[in-house]
Amino acid sequence: MALSQQNLESLELTTLNDGFALSWQNRLILRHTAQTPCLWVGAGEADIDMFRGNFSIKDKLDEKIALIEAAVIPQDAGWNVRFTRGDTVNATLHIGIDAEGRLELKLKNDSASHNRIWLRLAAKPEDHIYGCGEQFSYFDLRGKPFPLWTSEQGVGRNKQTYVTWQADCKENAGGDYYWTFFPQPTFVSTQKYYCHVENSCYMNFDFSAPDFHELAIWQDQAVLRFECADNYIQLLEKLTGLLGRQPEMPDWIYDGVTLGVQGGNEVCQQKLDVMRKGGVKVNGIWAQDWSGIRMTSFGKRVMWNWRWNGDLYPELNTRIKQWQAEGVRFLTYINPYVASDRDQCEEASKLGYLTKTHDGKDYHVEFGEFYAGVIDLTNPEAYDWYKELIKRNLIELGFGGWMADFGEYLPTDTVLHNGVSAEVMHNAWPALWAKCNYEALEETGKLGEVLFFMRAGYTGSQKYSTMMWAGDQNVDWSLDDGLASVIPAALSLAMTGHGLHHSDIGGYTTLFDMKRSKELLMRWCEFSAFTPMMRTHEGNRPGDNVQFDNDSDIIAQFARMTTVFTTLKPYIKHAVALNSQSGLPVMRPLFLHYEDDPQTYILKYQYLFGRDLLVAPVHQPGSSEWTLYLPQDNWVNLWTGEPYTGGGEITVAAPIGQPPVFYRATSEWAELFTSLRHI
Amino acid sequence: MALSQQNLESLELTTLNDGFALSWQNRLILRHTAQTPCLWVGAGEADIDMFRGNFSIKDKLDEKIALIEAAVIPQDAGWNVRFTRGDTVNATLHIGIDAEGRLELKLKNDSASHNRIWLRLAAKPEDHIYGCGEQFSYFDLRGKPFPLWTSEQGVGRNKQTYVTWQADCKENAGGDYYWTFFPQPTFVSTQKYYCHVENSCYMNFDFSAPDFHELAIWQDQAVLRFECADNYIQLLEKLTGLLGRQPEMPDWIYDGVTLGVQGGNEVCQQKLDVMRKGGVKVNGIWAQDWSGIRMTSFGKRVMWNWRWNGDLYPELNTRIKQWQAEGVRFLTYINPYVASDRDQCEEASKLGYLTKTHDGKDYHVEFGEFYAGVIDLTNPEAYDWYKELIKRNLIELGFGGWMADFGEYLPTDTVLHNGVSAEVMHNAWPALWAKCNYEALEETGKLGEVLFFMRAGYTGSQKYSTMMWAGDQNVDWSLDDGLASVIPAALSLAMTGHGLHHSDIGGYTTLFDMKRSKELLMRWCEFSAFTPMMRTHEGNRPGDNVQFDNDSDIIAQFARMTTVFTTLKPYIKHAVALNSQSGLPVMRPLFLHYEDDPQTYILKYQYLFGRDLLVAPVHQPGSSEWTLYLPQDNWVNLWTGEPYTGGGEITVAAPIGQPPVFYRATSEWAELFTSLRHI
Repeated sequence: MALSQQNLESLELTTLNDGFALSWQNRLILRHTAQTPCLWVGAGEADIDMFRGNFSIKDKLDEKIALIEAAVIPQDAGWNVRFTRGDTVNATLHIGIDAEGRLELKLKNDSASHNRIWLRLAAKPEDHIYGCGEQFSYFDLRGKPFPLWTSEQGVGRNKQTYVTWQADCKENAGGDYYWTFFPQPTFVSTQKYYCHVENSCYMNFDFSAPDFHELAIWQDQAVLRFECADNYIQLLEKLTGLLGRQPEMPDWIYDGVTLGVQGGNEVCQQKLDVMRKGGVKVNGIWAQDWSGIRMTSFGKRVMWNWRWNGDLYPELNTRIKQWQAEGVRFLTYINPYVASDRDQCEEASKLGYLTKTHDGKDYHVEFGEFYAGVIDLTNPEAYDWYKELIKRNLIELGFGGWMADFGEYLPTDTVLHNGVSAEVMHNAWPALWAKCNYEALEETGKLGEVLFFMRAGYTGSQKYSTMMWAGDQNVDWSLDDGLASVIPAALSLAMTGHGLHHSDIGGYTTLFDMKRSKELLMRWCEFSAFTPMMRTHEGNRPGDNVQFDNDSDIIAQFARMTTVFTTLKPYIKHAVALNSQSGLPVMRPLFLHYEDDPQTYILKYQYLFGRDLLVAPVHQPGSSEWTLYLPQDNWVNLWTGEPYTGGGEITVAAPIGQPPVFYRATSEWAELFTSLRHI
Repeated sequence: MALSQQNLESLELTTLNDGFALSWQNRLILRHTAQTPCLWVGAGEADIDMFRGNFSIKDKLDEKIALIEAAVIPQDAGWNVRFTRGDTVNATLHIGIDAEGRLELKLKNDSASHNRIWLRLAAKPEDHIYGCGEQFSYFDLRGKPFPLWTSEQGVGRNKQTYVTWQADCKENAGGDYYWTFFPQPTFVSTQKYYCHVENSCYMNFDFSAPDFHELAIWQDQAVLRFECADNYIQLLEKLTGLLGRQPEMPDWIYDGVTLGVQGGNEVCQQKLDVMRKGGVKVNGIWAQDWSGIRMTSFGKRVMWNWRWNGDLYPELNTRIKQWQAEGVRFLTYINPYVASDRDQCEEASKLGYLTKTHDGKDYHVEFGEFYAGVIDLTNPEAYDWYKELIKRNLIELGFGGWMADFGEYLPTDTVLHNGVSAEVMHNAWPALWAKCNYEALEETGKLGEVLFFMRAGYTGSQKYSTMMWAGDQNVDWSLDDGLASVIPAALSLAMTGHGLHHSDIGGYTTLFDMKRSKELLMRWCEFSAFTPMMRTHEGNRPGDNVQFDNDSDIIAQFARMTTVFTTLKPYIKHAVALNSQSGLPVMRPLFLHYEDDPQTYILKYQYLFGRDLLVAPVHQPGSSEWTLYLPQDNWVNLWTGEPYTGGGEITVAAPIGQPPVFYRATSEWAELFTSLRHI
């Protein structure tokens, strides 16, 4: 194949004294000598505890052996490298080009008992690294290890905060900087290549050494793929060529805010009326309690028996149509578990569709004062049964979309239909769950009309998850778990190939002494007007939080910001279309367009919204002004029209309702942007 | 040698399919097969950070290799076992009997680059394990790993407490269950053998597996010694035969409490007068500020320039004599560092007696708003110079004793005169520091007349540290860091061969919201009457703490409990003499005398004081009664004379001043004990 041949030529393997070096399009990928080997194999026994989606993961490491000898054997297209340590420990690396012209490294341990691999990729001290899924605390990942395991994100996520400590004491739930719903063994280096590992086992990507990245892989084999490009935009196009891209969103998404409401038809109607009367553009009502509620000490929980509950939502089928005629979709909620004490679980159990314990019984997971069975998505029949449930109980009823929640809780000691260890399937679960939802839309022709949004993800979510949301932020201003954390989350996911991201306006987690303030809700609202979707959430303790309809200031802020959002509709749609076509994300790190500016590589709390809007959300309380960085370009303050020449930090007034946003003076959308000055 | 020959006969090496088993006096010590090897070697790079004696220790593990093949080669007296993995990785184990008839295992890695050893000793699921130095949180060590590294003990020592979290946030100082001033790679198994490892490198003894104990040793060689005995008393006699024993204490120690006072002659005199007038037996004044003070934000600190400060203590030489004539010794304070901004440091620096940085400069350690040089105790000249300083500035002045503080802070990146890595010398430092003090006494003929007490320790402290104290308890009731923690500390140290232990009456660490209460001080006072030494401490923030002279209740409690203590003088002296002769500790775990009673192996908060007193200190606030366990024997309540037949739990009244203490009805000291009823 011509492509492979050409790419093969850009692949260079140089024999060194005692080793070899592998370069790919002039990037040094591997460097091996007896003194500085690139490969270790070993054995360990994973020690994994889960409590309500919070994981304690340790490795009982039995062996870790440096493979210091490497014999290179040329092949037709590539090389086999035979790594050995003495006469008893071996592994093989196949270096080649895949059918699409990517560099492919295939590793395989020779001993069945060796279930660990550590591979060191060459690095330069000055490299920055991005990606690894949705990372809330760091955007540039250089300098730290990043364990890759889908889980709850943690409450607080910083051992120095009192909130984290309280959550740790209660349920080991405090989390840490790397906890995420959506990890992925994929990163982009500023050497302008990406590296993607195909496995779904537990991995730990350690970017802390100056001259290598160490990838620890808890399996006996691994396949790595690499592509290079001349710039980051091309690189993301290639990455999403590998991983898949999200389809365009339904048109109605751009028409306003989706209001998170619970409590039945009348509450929905009443809140909708209040907001519309206040001038708020509303495109939907998102009611997660459509299937009823269960009371627990944590608060009201949704009844996980996925069927319209006529007590709370009488005549929902007709109400949905009325609302839709007014331009308001009805959105709802589902997850891949069925409450153990309800009939859908009973049915799944009878059909043999739940995952099992080692002694062949149904596995029930504790979710906080109730249990649920896990639909075995590796069983094609179970998968189809659940897909049909989505079609029948959600799509047929006319829902505009839903939150496809969870996916992080696959216990590692459950037994699956496909025979693969749950420890290996754990990370793959969110993407399987996404696929189930996606196919339900695809097979009913509803893609582009109905939208589901997910918090959990993994490789495959790029293709199958139509929208991500940032999960469960605290209702606070903390960098690691508050409003601010949504920005690196969106950007790191963008660098992992998922370009559609939004968050709960006002945050979600309301525990201990945390209560959502009016200021936080208003700042979050204005930030969300510069993301591809606006949606509110009451939080897990609605009564402790300020809500969107609490007073006229807040309603006015929603009126203003939804007007901004809907005014930007053509601009945002255009950016979403580009994401769909070429994987260019909607919320972009600045270096995608200003790659010669070293400053742009370390910005974690500002971004480009499409090509022409630079957004620096206010994420600290009591701020009347805000400092941000403008790269070299001609910028115009979105609210005042004041021109700025970029190339340094500036401080601007940032009253509520006017978050720091700048547009490029030369933008073809300048007229649209100018119109926002008068809102 | 006859002894060795006999012991050699009790050493059995059995060849197994694919391995071997080693038994010693019918205890299985090692069991090796290819599937379940007993030895791993490897390489790592220690990553050690110190901040004010708090250490963060990680291993950058490069390799860990199971040595699965073992070839046994008989020797004249013992065997060599040649362990290999393939043709390139090897280590040798020499199994023999040492000159004293002990089982000796000598391990040596063959590759210079392999600086890690993991050895698995055979174990039975039902074994209990004790020792490993001074352990504050656990007495039976089974079920957990115990890293062995001398350091601060931590403030709180339990990640679930708010105090610990605050200390962690401020200075990474919160600690954990295994943090200790006095670790030691020595343990006693209920199979009635001890195991002692001679190295001083970082080790981690992991007792969590059912069928082995894994000893991780951060060095390329190790020497292990074992002895067996028919009972624990004989076993401790053998262990202290190896490690050394403490000399008897000065007679005056038994004559009352040593009052911790600061602030100069007049404050000492005034407090002494108040206490004596209140009927308190006082044997000494312990004034740590004899060399002056330094003000820091932490509070008053001692000026680390070890010379009598005439401003605070004018005419101390004559005052000492007056007090001594009244039966009151003057005790003081020193540690192995010299304040960088004072003349002793300048002199040590000129003489080249300070440890160095890697570029040859003097190493100065940060101690909290001031720095100090580290006397290089591996330099014989520096060691002698410091010993002479102790003789001249402390002993010649007539001090009755001193706190020989610290020893835990040897930085791992300092360069030492003896050329040994500071990482390896770090643990050895406390015993070197003890030896310097001990020899100063020995060479001036003051052993048995002057007493120094230490908090830091390691192998060698048994012989050279004349008394231990439990370090810096919180002024609270917490199990891991309060009054209670002193009991497992004393008992674990007893099982490590050090039989003299006491604590700061009232605790020391006064941080955050902690303040010493009157009740705590009174309970600690009554507990201390049943330890070999009574001594108070003001704490680091004296003004926040209730002190011994604060009110008449407290003074009366001290009067009562010092009377108990001095009344017990002949009994305690006898127990101390036994400790000196045969290593039978003064504070003893119950199983030393009731080894057939399984209940006694898990008691961590009660002990035997000598042979005939059973003590169960009240360590919770607001207790008017207390539940304890009495082993099968005839017991008499020390305060009421009420007889009890042991063999179960009992609950007794425990008002302040009457801590639960029982004596054996058949004790030859019964009359002495009876006399205490009328105090």
